[in-house]
Amino acid sequence: MKILITSGGTTEKIDSVRGITNHSTGKLGKIIAETFLRNGHQVSLVTTENAVKPETNLNLSIYKISNVASLMETLEPLVKSHDVLIHSMAVSDYTPVYMTDFENLKNTQDLDTLLHEKNTESKISSNSDYQVLFLKKTPKLISLVKDWNPMIQLIGFKLLVDVCKDQLISVARASLSKNQAAYILANDLNQIKGNQHKAYLVSATEALTLETKDQIADAIYQKVSNND
Amino acid sequence: MKILITSGGTTEKIDSVRGITNHSTGKLGKIIAETFLRNGHQVSLVTTENAVKPETNLNLSIYKISNVASLMETLEPLVKSHDVLIHSMAVSDYTPVYMTDFENLKNTQDLDTLLHEKNTESKISSNSDYQVLFLKKTPKLISLVKDWNPMIQLIGFKLLVDVCKDQLISVARASLSKNQAAYILANDLNQIKGNQHKAYLVSATEALTLETKDQIADAIYQKVSNND
Repeated sequence: MKILITSGGTTEKIDSVRGITNHSTGKLGKIIAETFLRNGHQVSLVTTENAVKPETNLNLSIYKISNVASLMETLEPLVKSHDVLIHSMAVSDYTPVYMTDFENLKNTQDLDTLLHEKNTESKISSNSDYQVLFLKKTPKLISLVKDWNPMIQLIGFKLLVDVCKDQLISVARASLSKNQAAYILANDLNQIKGNQHKAYLVSATEALTLETKDQIADAIYQKVSNND
Repeated sequence: MKILITSGGTTEKIDSVRGITNHSTGKLGKIIAETFLRNGHQVSLVTTENAVKPETNLNLSIYKISNVASLMETLEPLVKSHDVLIHSMAVSDYTPVYMTDFENLKNTQDLDTLLHEKNTESKISSNSDYQVLFLKKTPKLISLVKDWNPMIQLIGFKLLVDVCKDQLISVARASLSKNQAAYILANDLNQIKGNQHKAYLVSATEALTLETKDQIADAIYQKVSNND
């Protein structure tokens, strides 16, 4: 099987020196990739500069991306040519539009006009005490996957912070049907520490409880290969 | 001599999963540290998780920081106990205060009140098309160095983007006197590519032109050891 995995976190540039980063080490995606490689599958890993990566392997292709735009461009043709997408990457949900002084905001009559401004300077500099950054929603990549390839088996990820098990599972179920995913791996940032990585692998009919990154990788591997 | 070097770029958290990062690989700081180590000096390197670092060395201590607050806390005692500070780290100039929907901004009468709001949720989530992030200036760390230790020899860094040589040198001279630095290394992002790293090592009386990271490290080493 041809397995496509995303890992790491995207960065949306504010200017040429600053960006908004979704923090993700890439560790889980690396372990999932290694699990499929160990079992003789071909793996394409779409990841970021700072994410940890598996060692070189004849069956492994690595594609580096930085922001949501480059992720979309890289992923579309890959989705079309793979059997499974395991989308563990932390993707930015907003991207910078315009940054300006707070004073400028206060002096603007029609605030909507600021959404159409652009910074022309390469490095936004300012002496003002407060600045305001306008951000725009990025396209929801996971919702496009089945349009690109209706046959692909999609495993999505949902990271929440400090919620109960019921909420995790209900958010996962909503994402499952909305994005036509086979499974959603739902996890809570507060329950990821060192070796511990509590998660629920949620389908329409079950919710498997997992405790470590290795268990998560094994469970995803089992589900994907049983479906084959 | 006891040499203190900073490298990498700080990240200011927006919430528990997102942050604003000043992009810096840490390569230049690493080469400067290696140059001093090779010449028998004791080096303390204050750096970030993602920055590249020199190999383990008995004369090298590494301190990891994340944001401006942790940098300040780590740096103050170190500045007091070192002879030289080479401050090559890309330090965030603004830190997030509050993030809200654009609609909420439009419905707020007195915009100043938004500067005193705080996000209570761990992961800011929103379905709105646009969001607004308020940012506050961080303390200018370099201006505190001489207060902490009037005897320390300070080498500061100035990174600009797409400016002419005269402007680079005049900005460096302004920083030199404002922060009581011995030297400012002024460089332009557009002139840093692969092996090339054009820079000017600026003092009150001279401006040395340098072309690579090795040349920069050697020039700083020469100036610092001649001053000894």
